[in-house]
Amino acid sequence: MENRQSWRQRLYIIIFETSTPAAQRFDNWLLVAILASLVVVMLDSIERFHSQYAGIFSALEWFFTALFAIEYALRLYSSPKPMRYAFSFFGLVDLLAVLPAILALMFADAQYLMIVRVIRMIRIFRVLKLRQYLTQANFLLVALRGSKQKIVVFLVSVSTLVTVYGALMYVIEGPANGFTSIPTGIYWAVVTLTTVGFGDITPQTPVGQMLATLVMITGYSIIAVPTGIFTAELANAMRQDGLMEHDCPHCRKNRHEYSAAFCSRCGGPLFSRQVEPSASTQNTPETD
Amino acid sequence: MENRQSWRQRLYIIIFETSTPAAQRFDNWLLVAILASLVVVMLDSIERFHSQYAGIFSALEWFFTALFAIEYALRLYSSPKPMRYAFSFFGLVDLLAVLPAILALMFADAQYLMIVRVIRMIRIFRVLKLRQYLTQANFLLVALRGSKQKIVVFLVSVSTLVTVYGALMYVIEGPANGFTSIPTGIYWAVVTLTTVGFGDITPQTPVGQMLATLVMITGYSIIAVPTGIFTAELANAMRQDGLMEHDCPHCRKNRHEYSAAFCSRCGGPLFSRQVEPSASTQNTPETD
Amino acid sequence: MENRQSWRQRLYIIIFETSTPAAQRFDNWLLVAILASLVVVMLDSIERFHSQYAGIFSALEWFFTALFAIEYALRLYSSPKPMRYAFSFFGLVDLLAVLPAILALMFADAQYLMIVRVIRMIRIFRVLKLRQYLTQANFLLVALRGSKQKIVVFLVSVSTLVTVYGALMYVIEGPANGFTSIPTGIYWAVVTLTTVGFGDITPQTPVGQMLATLVMITGYSIIAVPTGIFTAELANAMRQDGLMEHDCPHCRKNRHEYSAAFCSRCGGPLFSRQVEPSASTQNTPETD
Amino acid sequence: MENRQSWRQRLYIIIFETSTPAAQRFDNWLLVAILASLVVVMLDSIERFHSQYAGIFSALEWFFTALFAIEYALRLYSSPKPMRYAFSFFGLVDLLAVLPAILALMFADAQYLMIVRVIRMIRIFRVLKLRQYLTQANFLLVALRGSKQKIVVFLVSVSTLVTVYGALMYVIEGPANGFTSIPTGIYWAVVTLTTVGFGDITPQTPVGQMLATLVMITGYSIIAVPTGIFTAELANAMRQDGLMEHDCPHCRKNRHEYSAAFCSRCGGPLFSRQVEPSASTQNTPETD
Repeated sequence: MENRQSWRQRLYIIIFETSTPAAQRFDNWLLVAILASLVVVMLDSIERFHSQYAGIFSALEWFFTALFAIEYALRLYSSPKPMRYAFSFFGLVDLLAVLPAILALMFADAQYLMIVRVIRMIRIFRVLKLRQYLTQANFLLVALRGSKQKIVVFLVSVSTLVTVYGALMYVIEGPANGFTSIPTGIYWAVVTLTTVGFGDITPQTPVGQMLATLVMITGYSIIAVPTGIFTAELANAMRQDGLMEHDCPHCRKNRHEYSAAFCSRCGGPLFSRQVEPSASTQNTPETD
Repeated sequence: MENRQSWRQRLYIIIFETSTPAAQRFDNWLLVAILASLVVVMLDSIERFHSQYAGIFSALEWFFTALFAIEYALRLYSSPKPMRYAFSFFGLVDLLAVLPAILALMFADAQYLMIVRVIRMIRIFRVLKLRQYLTQANFLLVALRGSKQKIVVFLVSVSTLVTVYGALMYVIEGPANGFTSIPTGIYWAVVTLTTVGFGDITPQTPVGQMLATLVMITGYSIIAVPTGIFTAELANAMRQDGLMEHDCPHCRKNRHEYSAAFCSRCGGPLFSRQVEPSASTQNTPETD
Repeated sequence: MENRQSWRQRLYIIIFETSTPAAQRFDNWLLVAILASLVVVMLDSIERFHSQYAGIFSALEWFFTALFAIEYALRLYSSPKPMRYAFSFFGLVDLLAVLPAILALMFADAQYLMIVRVIRMIRIFRVLKLRQYLTQANFLLVALRGSKQKIVVFLVSVSTLVTVYGALMYVIEGPANGFTSIPTGIYWAVVTLTTVGFGDITPQTPVGQMLATLVMITGYSIIAVPTGIFTAELANAMRQDGLMEHDCPHCRKNRHEYSAAFCSRCGGPLFSRQVEPSASTQNTPETD
Repeated sequence: MENRQSWRQRLYIIIFETSTPAAQRFDNWLLVAILASLVVVMLDSIERFHSQYAGIFSALEWFFTALFAIEYALRLYSSPKPMRYAFSFFGLVDLLAVLPAILALMFADAQYLMIVRVIRMIRIFRVLKLRQYLTQANFLLVALRGSKQKIVVFLVSVSTLVTVYGALMYVIEGPANGFTSIPTGIYWAVVTLTTVGFGDITPQTPVGQMLATLVMITGYSIIAVPTGIFTAELANAMRQDGLMEHDCPHCRKNRHEYSAAFCSRCGGPLFSRQVEPSASTQNTPETD
């Protein structure tokens, strides 16, 4: 009883954490399994292979499903709050990794099944999540969230632009040149504004080409906007942690070198000198 | 009489402002109506649907026109200076939302009418305008206006570049390879320089391809320029609040470099070193 | 004699400078003439128009040539150092604007003539040159020159990358799929790396498509590099002129607010107080 | 014996260093040889030329091989630690420049040989390496290495995105519209997300086009991310020398915030206010 408890804890550390070498090994194997299952799905989707090795592929699929099912069971078993885990984001992703087989029993449309099987890839982040990359990812997310509002404004402006351009092209070029409807026109406008330029639909009339030129120049210029927003936001975030945050008790200058003992503006001591060690240590945290 | 006056004011707040929940609700409904009318226009432009539901679409069109007509009337009625509003930018946009029907009575070309109907979309900004996004949008506009001159120089250079490249390609490739005229050559140059690359016209001769390579490298490199201008401008705008607000105790100059220890106007020390707590605390508010 | 001298000077100011309203008007008319001549060249290059209005076009061409010839003569006449002007960059450009007609007498190939006629467009910068835009343009040039070395490194790396990629694609895909030679492969690699993507040549084999994916990801990622270089350079340049450059005589802090009278670091006077006006004015220049 | 030693050293300086004019000349000639051999490979790959001048090309190839072989021998001979050099990166690249001929004797597949011959181009960096560009290149590399982790996160996210998009398109559009398999779908997703847009495969169904629009907007927006990361990283590297070099007269701490008036370690004033000229002048050198 007692050692089973400890066994569960050990299992928890291996599966959910990344501190021990065993846990590291588990993560690596999980990564391999996920990627391998992905490769199988992809090869399976190629007609030539599918017709030949259909049997092997489904066998492998069942194998991986079993593997992920066992993993899911162990996670449920080892986690202290099974329900909490089961309904967490990654808990659902883990479940999703097992579902395809169950779904396969219900309805047999291999097509739609494939998407579910591909979504397994999201689990890669579960592994990344357990690495130092998390901080970096989080860092990017913060920068993106910081520029959210501006991005919204940008997207609304772009969609308006695209809609108007699309309607204009539909009227100027007309169905004869492939602009069969306003939505098609909008699709073309997006293709052009984002500088993708498939070339499946292209303006034929001189007026249409002049408008297209305008669209392209617009897209080429405003490609700056999200970049600018994001970069400024990121630079801002980076400048935040360049200096130490601590109000000078005399002049309130609130950013100093990490090694600063005195304010570089008024020369006053940053930390009252006659503090007993305890107090000084209690200051430490806020300087980290 | 008196309460009708107040009624008009309440109406004004609901329609033009965004402070009250009622106004918020009005904005949301307006947004829905605008988007719905847009969807109708788009579906109407798809031949398949148009042939089937032409009746329903025109009915809906009339419905939305009526709706926007009422809104326009209410705006005119409730605004303190009707004329001033009528000739304001958004006043004209609101009018434009009603025009299509009237125009339809005059000439029946559905095609050109559609553009006017699409332009309704601009009214989305009227709704956005009333949200906190305004500040953000305004912020972006400031940055764009700040970089206006540089952008002009950039655009003139690009157009010169594009014209010369276009003429060269026209001479090198010639009509045989699709470069039927200098304008066509310029159109191709824009398509290539902006990295859109439709592929409807492509160089066939080795010399033409070498020149194309040059155009592409140019475009790929100067894609930096507008981005750089904009970002620098944005960062600049963000640095505007770089100066510290603090009254100089001697000459009362109240904006200084962030790290200033002495007033840059009278040379007096900004912070006496042996300040008594009281003084320092009284400094706190203005420095936060 | 005396007043002819003055007349020449007045002419010089009108043609070469931009201070007087007359000079402004001259610039505007010059701009109009340049653009008009460009429009003529473009229309002339369109077969349909050329066949119809060949006569009118050549007449206009002669008219503009005469116009620019007169202008060139006046510039030579009015400039104090005619030879110096004649061999300056813009002097040659101005001459180039007259050449086409003379060349036309020698050999009649309209094709190559057109390029020379298009190059007239460069003269637009002569007009821009005389406006406040100059500073902005110069500003951009400085930023570009500052990042010159880095750009060279970047371009060498890119060309190596492109050459290797091109050779690989040539070997992998082979002439059968349109990669007829290494140069063609390189052309494709440039088209892909710069995210232009014409689609005139596309990889057909799985291996080729995997390599193409690599090329695209590379191009998509290093699109950052020139942008980053340029932006950092520009931001640097902008930070330079945020504050006034003037060494504090005591602590040598060499950037101050424009209004600064005392150093904000050591509190010492920036300009010795007992200077007689003359001396203080002699300080002014270096603060501009 | 003695002077042979010195002769080897002189050779070493000429070949490996860049300090003497002789070494400079050697580098230039090496650069010419490398580029010339490249041109030969390229022309050789063009069928038309190959069939005509096959003999000349192979002759030139042998000539360059001999040249590079001699150079390699000299490098081995002159370098103080031949083994160390032979297994250094550039040592292997130099060897690679000689290999093709030897390989040609073993198996005669001209195709694969060409790649090896193209790889010679990498040696250009050996020449660049010996120039002031090194610092710049190194500077860029530092910035890139600094943003490595973030780039990894970015690439993982993008690949996940691309895989999911690819699978969705494969299911939505199906083999009928060219999306023959999930890998093909992924290839299309990369082509679209990176805004390359070949147009060899394009969505035909309305749903597919809507998804494509999403992919394009995504790609157009996150084109910001690597740029932002890189630029911020670069700006960061540039800010490294943000601290002022000036010895504190009391505790000799010699790096301070640029605007520091008092030492941030001992709190003593960095600049005595009533300094006599002599002192200020003696400050000059170290602050420049």
